[in-house]
Amino acid sequence: MFSKPFADYFPVLKWARSYDGNALSGDLMAALIVTIMLIPQSLAYALLAGLPPEAGLYASIAPIILYAIFGTSRALAVGPVAVVSLMTASAIAGIADQGTMGYAVAALTLAALSGAILLAMGLLKLGFLANFLSHPVIGGFITASGILIATSQLRHLLGISAGGDTLPEMVASLVQNLDQTNAMTLAIGVSATAFLFWVRKGLKPLLRRIGLGPRTAGMLTKAGPVVAVVASTVAVWAFGLDAQGVRIVGIVPQGLPPLTLPSFSPDLIKLLVLPALLISVIGFVESISVAQTLAAKKRQRIDPDQELIGLGAANIGAAFTGGYPVTGGFARSVVNFDAGAETAAAGAITAIGLAIAAVALTPLIHFLPTATLAATIIVAVLSLVDFSILTRSWTYSRADFFSVAATILVTLGLGVEAGVSAGVALSIALHLYKTSRPHVAEVGLVPGTQHFRNIHRHKVLTDPTLLTLRIDESLYFANARFLEDYIADRVATDCHIKNVVLMCSAINEIDLSALESLEAINHRLNTIDVNLNLSEVKGPVMDRLKKSQFLESLTGQVFLSQYDAMRTLASEQALR
Amino acid sequence: MFSKPFADYFPVLKWARSYDGNALSGDLMAALIVTIMLIPQSLAYALLAGLPPEAGLYASIAPIILYAIFGTSRALAVGPVAVVSLMTASAIAGIADQGTMGYAVAALTLAALSGAILLAMGLLKLGFLANFLSHPVIGGFITASGILIATSQLRHLLGISAGGDTLPEMVASLVQNLDQTNAMTLAIGVSATAFLFWVRKGLKPLLRRIGLGPRTAGMLTKAGPVVAVVASTVAVWAFGLDAQGVRIVGIVPQGLPPLTLPSFSPDLIKLLVLPALLISVIGFVESISVAQTLAAKKRQRIDPDQELIGLGAANIGAAFTGGYPVTGGFARSVVNFDAGAETAAAGAITAIGLAIAAVALTPLIHFLPTATLAATIIVAVLSLVDFSILTRSWTYSRADFFSVAATILVTLGLGVEAGVSAGVALSIALHLYKTSRPHVAEVGLVPGTQHFRNIHRHKVLTDPTLLTLRIDESLYFANARFLEDYIADRVATDCHIKNVVLMCSAINEIDLSALESLEAINHRLNTIDVNLNLSEVKGPVMDRLKKSQFLESLTGQVFLSQYDAMRTLASEQALR
Repeated sequence: MFSKPFADYFPVLKWARSYDGNALSGDLMAALIVTIMLIPQSLAYALLAGLPPEAGLYASIAPIILYAIFGTSRALAVGPVAVVSLMTASAIAGIADQGTMGYAVAALTLAALSGAILLAMGLLKLGFLANFLSHPVIGGFITASGILIATSQLRHLLGISAGGDTLPEMVASLVQNLDQTNAMTLAIGVSATAFLFWVRKGLKPLLRRIGLGPRTAGMLTKAGPVVAVVASTVAVWAFGLDAQGVRIVGIVPQGLPPLTLPSFSPDLIKLLVLPALLISVIGFVESISVAQTLAAKKRQRIDPDQELIGLGAANIGAAFTGGYPVTGGFARSVVNFDAGAETAAAGAITAIGLAIAAVALTPLIHFLPTATLAATIIVAVLSLVDFSILTRSWTYSRADFFSVAATILVTLGLGVEAGVSAGVALSIALHLYKTSRPHVAEVGLVPGTQHFRNIHRHKVLTDPTLLTLRIDESLYFANARFLEDYIADRVATDCHIKNVVLMCSAINEIDLSALESLEAINHRLNTIDVNLNLSEVKGPVMDRLKKSQFLESLTGQVFLSQYDAMRTLASEQALR
Repeated sequence: MFSKPFADYFPVLKWARSYDGNALSGDLMAALIVTIMLIPQSLAYALLAGLPPEAGLYASIAPIILYAIFGTSRALAVGPVAVVSLMTASAIAGIADQGTMGYAVAALTLAALSGAILLAMGLLKLGFLANFLSHPVIGGFITASGILIATSQLRHLLGISAGGDTLPEMVASLVQNLDQTNAMTLAIGVSATAFLFWVRKGLKPLLRRIGLGPRTAGMLTKAGPVVAVVASTVAVWAFGLDAQGVRIVGIVPQGLPPLTLPSFSPDLIKLLVLPALLISVIGFVESISVAQTLAAKKRQRIDPDQELIGLGAANIGAAFTGGYPVTGGFARSVVNFDAGAETAAAGAITAIGLAIAAVALTPLIHFLPTATLAATIIVAVLSLVDFSILTRSWTYSRADFFSVAATILVTLGLGVEAGVSAGVALSIALHLYKTSRPHVAEVGLVPGTQHFRNIHRHKVLTDPTLLTLRIDESLYFANARFLEDYIADRVATDCHIKNVVLMCSAINEIDLSALESLEAINHRLNTIDVNLNLSEVKGPVMDRLKKSQFLESLTGQVFLSQYDAMRTLASEQALR
C-alpha cells in the first residue's frame, strides 16, 4: 500500500526547502489577484450550493492550506467550483431544507465523505477509477450542468421563489412564479449580467487599446465581479433598495472559519455516499486536467495518486471548518499561474487573504444583492456550455456522440447524478459492444514476400485447405463467443478446410473465457478432423497459455511466424 | 432490422423439405428415449421451481414444438432445466406464496417476459449482450446454483418444511426444523439418492461387462430415474406409506396443457423484468453452447440471433400453456443427439410423447413421493458443481479467479440474482482496469535491421533527443489519461527529449477521449518545444484521425514506418 518514500506524501517538503525571495514575490502577486477574484466567487458558489455565503469563504481557507501541503501541483487553486456546488445542492435537496442546520451538516458530511473517498483512492492507488468517465461524458455533463446552473440562478435575477432539480422542473417553477417578479431586483440583475458579459468580452480589448500590456489587461478583467459587487452593494445601501424587495445577503458572521463536525449518522452517510463518490470523481477529473496542463508548461510532475491525497485532505479540511466539497478550479488556477505563482505558497497566502476578508470585510457585504451574485454565476458558467462536443463527436465517432447526447439529455431531464451514471454506463456498454465484434481479416501471402494481408483487399496467395484468420483485438469474454461463432460458420460452409490458423499478432491478452472458447473451437474442429494452429503469439500471451492445458490438447502447432505456418501447412507445392 | 430472407426466420422449412424415412427412424428412436428421460425430470424441476408437477410436463410440450419451428439446432431439447427453475423460484419467492394462483400466474408472466426479451434480442440482433457473462462467471454461477439447488431439496429428503433463498438461510432453516424429520421419507429419499448415484457411476460399467454396447449401456442408465420413480411409487402405494407422513405428489390433473394467460399488470411486470432478463441471458448462454457443440459435430450451422428467436418463441409458448421459463438443456440434448436425432422433428415427437403422458399417465404418479423427485434433482445438479474452475483460474489469471470467487460467494450468500449481477459487474470492472494500464514499451532500433524492440529487453540503438513509445492496446477512455500521465512524467524527467514518437502498430482504435488526450499531449509538449509524432498508424485509425483537426495541429509528422521516423528525427548521424 505505501509503496513510495514517506516524504513523497508531503510534496511541501520538496519546494519549501528551496524557497527564496524570488519565489515569494511571484507567489505574493498571484495570491493578491486570486484573493480579489475569489471573494465574490466564493460567496456566489455558496449561494448556488444552497449554503450561507460565508460557507464559500470558509471552504476556500483551510482546503487551500491543506492542498498546499499535500498536493503536487504548484499552481492549482482549490476551493468551491460551480459544478461541484450544483452537485452539492442536488445531493442535499431531498434530505434537508435550505437554511436549516440539517442542510449545513449534510454539506459538511458530504465534504467529509468526499475527502475520505479521495484519500482512500489515493492511498490505494485507485485513481484509475476516474478513467471510467470518458471525455465526451465529462464534456456533455459540464455543458448540461452549466445550463442547469444558469437556469437555477434566474430566480435570483427575477427576485422570485422557484425550485426544481431538473430543467423541466426549473422552467415550470419559474413560469409559475413569474408574476412575483421584482422589477428593481430584475434591473440590478440584468445590469450586473450585462456588465459582466461586457467585462469578459469588451474590457480586455479596451484596456489593450489604452496601452496596457496583455497580462495586466487580462488580470484587470478578473476584477470585474468585484466592481459589480461593490457598485450594486453601494446602490442598495444608498437608495435603501432592500426595503423595495431586493433580496440582500444580510448578516454574515464575522470571524475565522469555525470548527465544525460532520455527522456520523449511518442513515445520512448511506444517503450521501453515492453523491460523494460522483462529486469526488468529477472533482478529481476536473482538477487533474488543470494541474497537468499547468505543470506541463514548466516541465513539472503531477502524481495523480498524490493529487487524490491532496484533494482528499482539502475536503476533509472543508468538513471541519464550516465549508462544503471543494476541488481545483480551472479559471482561478489559470489566473494563479498567469499571475506568476511559483509554489503552493501562493495558495497559502491566498488563504490568509481570504481569512482577513472573513474577519474584516463581511459587514461590508450586508447590502450585497443576491441578484449580483447570481449574475456572477451565470456569466461564469455560460463559458462552460459548449455544444461543439456534439458536432465533433458526430463527425469522429457515433458511439461517442451517443454517450455525449445521452449524458446531456439525462442530466437536464433527470438531474446530475442520473446524468453522470447514464453517461458512464453507456460509454462502458458501447466500448464492450465495439470490442465484442473485433475486426477479423482472412489473410493470404503477398507474392514474393513473407507478408500476409487481407484476401479481400490485396492480391494474395491462399490454399484451399488452409484458413488463416488475423484477429485485430485482444481476446476476452466479450468477444470470445464471436470467435466461436465466426469459425463455426466459416468451417461449416467450406469442407475443403483441413487447417485453421489464428494469426495472433494483434492479440495482447487472452483471458480465461477466451481460453475456454479456444479449447471449445479446438475440440469442435477436432470432431470434423480440422486442426487448429496458432502463429505469431506474443511473449506474455504465450507465457499464460503455457500455464494452461491448452497447448497440450491443441490439435495443430504453434508457429513463430505466419510464413512458417503457411510453408508447413499448405497443400500446394507453390506455396511452400 | 429484418436483414435476412424471410424464410430464414423459419429454419423448419429447410429440413422439412428433405425429410425422409431415414431421418424419421433416427428421430423416433431419439424421441422415445428423451421422453422417458424427461417425464421424471419435468416433474422434479417443477417441484424445484415451486410449481405443481404438471407445470413441468406442460413446459416441455408447446415449447419443444415452437423451438422445432424457429430454432436452428437440430438436436437441442428445450424444456425446464435446473438453474432456470431455481431462478424462477427465487424470482417469485418474494411476490407470491407457493401453491397459490398468484404464484402460477407469476411463473407464466416470467416466461412471457423472458420470451419477449429473447425475441426482441433476436430480432434486434442483441445476442452480443450475452457476452457480458464471462465463462468464469457462468462457471461460478452454475456451481453455486448447483449447491443451492441440492441444499433446497434436502427438506424433501427429510420430509420437513424449510425455506430460504440463500445458503445461510437454507441451512439455518433446515437445522431449525430438523426435529420434524420423517424417518420413512428419509429412508425413501436416501435410498433413491444412493440408487441414482449408483446408476450414474456403477451401472454403465456393469452393463458393459454383461456385453451391452457402449451406446445402449449409456441409454439404459438414463432410464434410472424412471426406475426410481416407479419403484418408490409402488412402495408408497403398496404399503400405504402416505398415511405415515410420506409426502406424495397427490392429484395431478389429467389432460393436455391448458390455455393460460400471463398477467399484464405493470406492477408485476416491473418486479419480474430484471429476473426475466437474467433468466433469458443465462438460459441463452447455456443453450447456445450446447447447440454449438452438437452442431459442430455434423458441420451444421447455428445462427445465434435465430436461436434467440427460437428460445423466445418457446418461452412464449410456455406462458400460454401453463408452463414456466424454459431453455435448451445440456443432458437431454446430448441424449437426443446420441440417440440419433436427425432433425428438430425428434423434438416434436417427444412433445407428442409427453402429451400422451400428460393425458394418460398422470393418475399413476399420485403416490409418487416428493423425496424421489428431490433425489433426482440432487443427483442431477451435483454434476454441475465443479470447483476446479477456482484452481484453473487461479493458475491462469487472477482477475478471472476473483470473478469466479465473487460470483460463487455472492450467489451462495445473497442469492442468484445478486450473484450473476456481481459477477458481470466485476468482470467488466477488471477488464477495464486491465486495459486502463496498457503495456507501454520504450523501443529502439535493433542494429542492422529495421525492427524496433523494447530497450529494456534487447540491445538496441536509441537517440537521446528521441523518445519512442509502442503502446500495446487500443486507445480509449479507460487508458487515455494513463498515456497523458506516462508521457508527462517521462518528459518532465528528461530534458534532452526533442521528439516523442508514438508507434501505433498495436492500436486498433482511438476513441474521442483518446483523441482529446492526444491533443492535450500535443499541446503540452508544444509548450516546452517537444514535437509529437506518430508512426505505423493502421488504415482505419488514420481514416478516423483525418476526420478530426488533430493532424493539422500535430507539431510533428506521421510516419509510415518507425524506421522512417528514426531516420528523419534522430540527431545522431549513426542512426540515420
